[in-house]
Amino acid sequence: MNDQLRLDRVRNVLVRLEETIIFSLIERAQFCRNEVIYEPGALGEALEGHSLVGYLLHETEKTHARLRRYTSPDEHPFFADLPSPVLPALAYESPLFPNSVNVNERLWCLYEEEIVPSLCREGDDRQYGSSAVNDVMCLQALSKRVHYGKFVAESKVRAMPERLGPLVRAGDGRGLMAAITDPDVESGVVQRVERKCRTYLRDLEGGIGPTLDPLAIVSIYSRWIIPMNKEVQVAYLLQRGDWRPRDPEA
Amino acid sequence: MNDQLRLDRVRNVLVRLEETIIFSLIERAQFCRNEVIYEPGALGEALEGHSLVGYLLHETEKTHARLRRYTSPDEHPFFADLPSPVLPALAYESPLFPNSVNVNERLWCLYEEEIVPSLCREGDDRQYGSSAVNDVMCLQALSKRVHYGKFVAESKVRAMPERLGPLVRAGDGRGLMAAITDPDVESGVVQRVERKCRTYLRDLEGGIGPTLDPLAIVSIYSRWIIPMNKEVQVAYLLQRGDWRPRDPEA
Repeated sequence: MNDQLRLDRVRNVLVRLEETIIFSLIERAQFCRNEVIYEPGALGEALEGHSLVGYLLHETEKTHARLRRYTSPDEHPFFADLPSPVLPALAYESPLFPNSVNVNERLWCLYEEEIVPSLCREGDDRQYGSSAVNDVMCLQALSKRVHYGKFVAESKVRAMPERLGPLVRAGDGRGLMAAITDPDVESGVVQRVERKCRTYLRDLEGGIGPTLDPLAIVSIYSRWIIPMNKEVQVAYLLQRGDWRPRDPEA
Repeated sequence: MNDQLRLDRVRNVLVRLEETIIFSLIERAQFCRNEVIYEPGALGEALEGHSLVGYLLHETEKTHARLRRYTSPDEHPFFADLPSPVLPALAYESPLFPNSVNVNERLWCLYEEEIVPSLCREGDDRQYGSSAVNDVMCLQALSKRVHYGKFVAESKVRAMPERLGPLVRAGDGRGLMAAITDPDVESGVVQRVERKCRTYLRDLEGGIGPTLDPLAIVSIYSRWIIPMNKEVQVAYLLQRGDWRPRDPEA
């Protein structure tokens, strides 16, 4: 099988993304919630009607799109109106079925309404720029983690065609959700994330600002990241149907 | 004294920045050196003659400048041709003497020629975009750390005017360097950074890619970050001269 789809390789990517996500969330938690940075128009007309975070995310995505970030099958933009790449395309065949699954709109909502309030102290410390820069890093890391479900799903369906094939053909989303769910793997992820958070946060004790509760990050994993990753898996499998890659090694 | 200049507060900012720097360097070290991203023009005409990293840093700074990042006395751009802020200015009096100390040009050189090679595996893994995104984060974090020397210096000169005043008035850079140097504090920083690196890297063992040697990051601190921070302190003090803040509380 394509190296990118070996389940141990997919799992390693997910494990490595844990550091990126935990580090970004810890960085964001230095600052207060700063609700005004999420309100469209609240910081003036010059942001083209966006919130501060929306403006920064849009500008960042425009630049990254020019550098062909979103031609990679593991990257998903939050905005649709992005410029074309200025770098020549990479000769690279995606191992995924061409699909339109993109849950960023909901992820962004959740992030502002659930994740930030669970992570940051209430209030406004005027650190708008730093907060927004960290929000963009968090959103990009979370989006990558959640959409990596496509690689997980493609890897599973190639490994267990007898099990998943009939459910896919029947369009049975609920059955697929049950079939891709592995409570042992999930509780392993949650335990590892908790251990990492405790380690990374220990050194910050006594630093500036109140200490972040490791369980705040653990709960972001169990309440949002893992479920959304599984939803992406199911949505991808339903779009994928009975697809047979031209070259199953690809 | 102004809260921002209390030496314990200044030290806390530096300690907190260690996580930001260590996390960014660990993220960059996932990828190969990818030397081509540092070569101006190597990736085509569309990057306006920049290297890929130069282009991304420039675009990032343009966006951040619009969000008034560089109106803050602890932020220093790498580029001079940046747009004006679109957000209204913050009512904020800098506790620093207005100065032009900016060592980013040399920092950027050092980063590409010394820091990246000491951190990353040799070679090219085609992860240009991800490498460049992490380079920008590293450069911004290192720049903030190095230029925070201005706050350290202002804090010291207010705390020890008898000791530093005569050296400043004599323009005695070498004497100032000796006076601001505290080997115990420096070795404390190095030891703490080593401990943090060992902690943060332990969990990454067995993940994808070869493990980064914690001493690579420690040596970036002792060879580059601490010395450049001290150079900034001295350069700032020499420009500052005998300045007396209108309101010494500011």
